[in-house]
Amino acid sequence: MTEVFLALDFGGTKHAAAIAAVGEAQWRDYRRRLAPANSSSQTDLQVMRTLIQELLNGSQPVAIGVSFGGPVDFATGTVRLSHHVPGWENLPLQKLLESEFGVPVLEDNDANVAALGEQRFGAGQGCSDLLYITVSTGVGGGWILNGEPWRGFEGMAGEIGHIVVDPQGPICLCGKRGCVERLASGRYLAQDAREQLQDQANTPAPILRSLIANDLSGNLEALTAQHLSQAAAQGDQFSQAILRRGATALGIGIGNVANLINPQCFILGGGVTQAGEFFWQPLQQSARATALPEVHFEIMPTALQDQAPLWGAIALASAAKNQSRQN
Amino acid sequence: MTEVFLALDFGGTKHAAAIAAVGEAQWRDYRRRLAPANSSSQTDLQVMRTLIQELLNGSQPVAIGVSFGGPVDFATGTVRLSHHVPGWENLPLQKLLESEFGVPVLEDNDANVAALGEQRFGAGQGCSDLLYITVSTGVGGGWILNGEPWRGFEGMAGEIGHIVVDPQGPICLCGKRGCVERLASGRYLAQDAREQLQDQANTPAPILRSLIANDLSGNLEALTAQHLSQAAAQGDQFSQAILRRGATALGIGIGNVANLINPQCFILGGGVTQAGEFFWQPLQQSARATALPEVHFEIMPTALQDQAPLWGAIALASAAKNQSRQN
Repeated sequence: MTEVFLALDFGGTKHAAAIAAVGEAQWRDYRRRLAPANSSSQTDLQVMRTLIQELLNGSQPVAIGVSFGGPVDFATGTVRLSHHVPGWENLPLQKLLESEFGVPVLEDNDANVAALGEQRFGAGQGCSDLLYITVSTGVGGGWILNGEPWRGFEGMAGEIGHIVVDPQGPICLCGKRGCVERLASGRYLAQDAREQLQDQANTPAPILRSLIANDLSGNLEALTAQHLSQAAAQGDQFSQAILRRGATALGIGIGNVANLINPQCFILGGGVTQAGEFFWQPLQQSARATALPEVHFEIMPTALQDQAPLWGAIALASAAKNQSRQN
Repeated sequence: MTEVFLALDFGGTKHAAAIAAVGEAQWRDYRRRLAPANSSSQTDLQVMRTLIQELLNGSQPVAIGVSFGGPVDFATGTVRLSHHVPGWENLPLQKLLESEFGVPVLEDNDANVAALGEQRFGAGQGCSDLLYITVSTGVGGGWILNGEPWRGFEGMAGEIGHIVVDPQGPICLCGKRGCVERLASGRYLAQDAREQLQDQANTPAPILRSLIANDLSGNLEALTAQHLSQAAAQGDQFSQAILRRGATALGIGIGNVANLINPQCFILGGGVTQAGEFFWQPLQQSARATALPEVHFEIMPTALQDQAPLWGAIALASAAKNQSRQN
């Protein structure tokens, strides 16, 4: 029988699982499902168990890799908490899966796992030092240095979302001013747009306004960064300016990181990075202008999209197998 | 006969050399000399050869470690250039010393070597991940990650001096606005003070002004960051404010680095860091305020002072010896 690795991705709102044969770089099978409304860690685990049953059909994987959408203590495989779902506090997910399936398990947070996925199977192949950045509701990051995940001494490395690039900037959820996340995340791009749109006189934005009227029945609260991208692509200058400001701030962050760590590449995923040239062009420009002339790097879009964590989980499963062999 | 390592430190204005017995953490002998006026790479090398002769007295070291005050290609041991002295462009210093002394040599730039020195022999002992920062005429940095120097894929890592912490700030020599070096280096602290002192009416600064009148014969051009520290210690509020602004900017840089890389500690050397509480207190405060609450670190002063590069050179010599054994 074919030996397979099992990859699990616990997201905030959806869960995915897949199996790949050992040594292969394509799925044997792949499933995903939305988390139920008012979910808890227990309902999340139940959804995942169903996916796993469908995939394995009673057979046993060689090892399991897990991506979790929240802070994880990698050393013990314990989830610290979920920012979206109650009940995950200090849940020893790795041990739980190990005893449930009787195979080695490794688990890490989604940004670290996505970085690993891109490096082993995606846009970062051949690149031994990279920062993976997800620009979505929030902004997060995961490091690969010398070909291996770099987590920092407490597992907190990669928080590019909370580096300050404008100490006079607007206040972020974290309490500081001018964090990258405050300036470039989808949540805040939409919030900034909404606030400016309240001011009818100074913000014409005709294309965006007609999109809100038609697609959102006039409900400004439903506006997201995706609508800004749409309007920008249709020539809405207001939306273009909002995206440009966010991209410029993220570019300063990336240029700073290049000066500090000198990695070969940055790989960007998440919804906001799909905003097209109005996002990518100022991003590349400001990153290049911030880095010293002698410091080189590439900024590339994700190759694996939302499957980056699952592929990283395959790499973790492979590492779990090797570790258990050595012990 | 005792086996010794030879450590060399080529600085911009002074050179130092020392020998330590293999396995010992104290100097057997130590020499230093100012570089001659109008020096070139040739006169620098001549000064160093004299120091070495005095130290070795005809005997042979086991291996040599070199700290160079400018960019170095570590892989080939070639000096890229000196920012202070002509003739160093692409000089293969490592090969030159290897053929002159017939022993293995390793060489790196002073910030990387000082980081290594502090980690093996100084304030960073027991700390496997650290950033060493020198705050002097300029601001530079060197990384230790997983107990080993981290140089980045082109050897450019550690440039905390050129991360942007205030995109609306004043323009740096590098062409960007609001770099840490522009806001916190000795050169620019003094320049900012000089510019503000020209404005007699709005800048009383009586203590600093009397220090300039008495100690510098009224020559404002001779003002350095050290005079600001002196005046600050004597209660000069203007000097205190200048130091505070610089320290706050550096603290933002350090907090950003903590969020990105999550090292255990930062070790600070260089003249500006001797400015006392008016520098250290706002530095610690702004670093702590910039880092996420879950991200911990210590900021410590150098233990080895200006001998940090020499001790790092001993660590390099030891690595050179081990490498040559394996080959």
